[in-house]
Amino acid sequence: MQAQIITIGDEILIGQIVDTNSAYIAERLNSIGIRVGQMLSVGDTRQAIFDALQQACTRADVIVVTGGLGPTNDDITKHTLAEFTDAKTWVQHQASLEIIESIAQRRGLPMNEQNRNQAMLPDTCEALLNRLGTAPGMWFEHGGKIIISMPGVPFEMQGLMDEVISRLQKRFALPPIYHRTIATYGLAESILAEKLAEWERALPEYIHLAYLPNPLSGVRLRFSVYNPEPTTEAEVEQAVVALRTLLGQHIYGEGTDTLATAVGRLLRERRATVSTAESCTGGKIASLLTAIAGSSAYFKGGVVAYDNSVKSTLLNVSPETIEKHGAVSLPVVEQMAEGARHALQTDYAVAVSGIAGPGGGTPEKPVGTVCIAVASPRGVVSQQVQLTGDRLRNIDRSAAMALNMLRLQIVISD
Amino acid sequence: MQAQIITIGDEILIGQIVDTNSAYIAERLNSIGIRVGQMLSVGDTRQAIFDALQQACTRADVIVVTGGLGPTNDDITKHTLAEFTDAKTWVQHQASLEIIESIAQRRGLPMNEQNRNQAMLPDTCEALLNRLGTAPGMWFEHGGKIIISMPGVPFEMQGLMDEVISRLQKRFALPPIYHRTIATYGLAESILAEKLAEWERALPEYIHLAYLPNPLSGVRLRFSVYNPEPTTEAEVEQAVVALRTLLGQHIYGEGTDTLATAVGRLLRERRATVSTAESCTGGKIASLLTAIAGSSAYFKGGVVAYDNSVKSTLLNVSPETIEKHGAVSLPVVEQMAEGARHALQTDYAVAVSGIAGPGGGTPEKPVGTVCIAVASPRGVVSQQVQLTGDRLRNIDRSAAMALNMLRLQIVISD
Repeated sequence: MQAQIITIGDEILIGQIVDTNSAYIAERLNSIGIRVGQMLSVGDTRQAIFDALQQACTRADVIVVTGGLGPTNDDITKHTLAEFTDAKTWVQHQASLEIIESIAQRRGLPMNEQNRNQAMLPDTCEALLNRLGTAPGMWFEHGGKIIISMPGVPFEMQGLMDEVISRLQKRFALPPIYHRTIATYGLAESILAEKLAEWERALPEYIHLAYLPNPLSGVRLRFSVYNPEPTTEAEVEQAVVALRTLLGQHIYGEGTDTLATAVGRLLRERRATVSTAESCTGGKIASLLTAIAGSSAYFKGGVVAYDNSVKSTLLNVSPETIEKHGAVSLPVVEQMAEGARHALQTDYAVAVSGIAGPGGGTPEKPVGTVCIAVASPRGVVSQQVQLTGDRLRNIDRSAAMALNMLRLQIVISD
Repeated sequence: MQAQIITIGDEILIGQIVDTNSAYIAERLNSIGIRVGQMLSVGDTRQAIFDALQQACTRADVIVVTGGLGPTNDDITKHTLAEFTDAKTWVQHQASLEIIESIAQRRGLPMNEQNRNQAMLPDTCEALLNRLGTAPGMWFEHGGKIIISMPGVPFEMQGLMDEVISRLQKRFALPPIYHRTIATYGLAESILAEKLAEWERALPEYIHLAYLPNPLSGVRLRFSVYNPEPTTEAEVEQAVVALRTLLGQHIYGEGTDTLATAVGRLLRERRATVSTAESCTGGKIASLLTAIAGSSAYFKGGVVAYDNSVKSTLLNVSPETIEKHGAVSLPVVEQMAEGARHALQTDYAVAVSGIAGPGGGTPEKPVGTVCIAVASPRGVVSQQVQLTGDRLRNIDRSAAMALNMLRLQIVISD
């Protein structure tokens, strides 16, 4: 089973927006065992879309199209798909019309020909109800191929994908796939692979393993089993148990967990709270923690202490310590962490001070020197690391390492 | 002049990474007047790459390829390109070898067959020196087409693009293009277009105008003139002067300016400082300000006051005000801004409190209610807005609106 993804839009071809839809759709298709052979982006003209469809039909069984719907580009995709699938007439889709009417009402816009037309679909498709916008999705079967059209707005497309996935599974009687994903942090992919070589060899052949590395969230290990048996879950669990023995606290979560969600869960379980004291990360750690809904249950707040005076006035760092060791030093981050923990009255506090670059480096403390500390009821721990990226990479990396160090200190407390 | 972009990598097709290279390359090509007809992503097999090259040559004059270089995938792109261009032999590229040696030394790795091979190139190409990594770029001319191959690592590819752009301009004697970009914030694209309709009609025909909207940085207006004359700059300047009269303070910068760089420049020029007091944005504003190199010259720090107790202890917000008006209210953000300005001893302070969602909304203050205040030597101003996105959109949007309000308060001070 092979798929092709086609994204439509001049704004993609001029580099104005990055196409994120293709990756999302590919990930979902892969999760049900449909491989993506090509991704193609074309402009929003009839000719470009028609050509792309024609070619895709020679390569793939399933063609997933996003974009080129809506009044601003004359619904060019819808009209081209109608032509491509030899539609005879247009049919009004009642449920979509009702959604369009309610959206128009909410936005205070009048109903007119233009938005009513959005509910008119070629007679060669089945409608896929888009509850989040005015352009319905469409499902065509033509010449033995499935062609699926969705709007280009990412959250509308994502809202339609659940139905698309479940229809594809039914239509092709795809073998169910059992997935389980384990999230690790602190070991590079190559080191992890070396450490796991023997364990991997011992895995039953039908358990497939993939390494999925990401600079901000470490390496994910994904187990896949096609046509799972009633015993599959227990067998994967057995492999995970062995993995836990090998990796210990390098494992921080499962599925879509991030370091920030893992820290949040640990704090919530312990009814503990945390605060942040950030210099070079400049609010990034607080921002990652508060991106998660419900984080106010454990995150009380933080101080971005960019200027040394702020380190002293709000976090009670001794000016003599800064003078003697420099702002990027273990004694200073330790005082920052303890200062935040005290000032914000939290159980834990994490602090970072470093030289993100490009300026500010010295021979003793080059760009990329970063000090991290975590304060807890048991005292304060700290470490110094040397990073090698540019400014934004160093900030991201420092934030991830700080969250991981915080996580480990919470776990150790048990 | 038509181009095709081909990105190579299984990690793209399984949705593990989003292809950002295509948008970057497209933007650069468009800036010199080369249109991109298609973007294609294929897997890293000889067959997939060969087919993609063959098809691209039927459509485009310039084919830009990234990825599939390096030892981990057997330099599949390089070998396929050698075959595709009928290379007879391999040639060692001395300057690339020296870079590979120095990178190996810096990483403490031994020189071996594998990394020495990276400097071996087909005799059908000219090498493009990659100073940031071990895989050289390659420039082929074959069958009247230009094929350019670059590594898939974004910052290595970006490092090579300057040379690629200047070679393309020379090779095709492309008409030079004069660009100028004006950045605006605060008017939606449709409203802006309406406001500018008459001015746009009066533009000389040879000045092309494009609207480039972005949720975080507003709408950019890009002027382009092909084959500029010595008078072009002055003529575009004349149009910009008229634009400034129409848009006034909605214009915040030029070129690649963001709201954060614009605020930074204004503060720097006035030798003024700023601090932040954030509730629902959770450190996002500080993070945007500190992403800019050199921001320590004007950003002293901030407080993330998520919990109400932090608003009171660190920012001196009166608990009675919180009790009476609620944490999301104009009186509270005003006190937050004044509290930050006082505690961090800055000229300006910006404060945000709101309900990002999904929880926390009430009939009087639904999700998306956001209050923003800016304190300055002239006192404090505040406003309440109603946003309609999900949690992350609401956070981003609030941060952008707060930076814009700060910017306007600094400008007004003159």
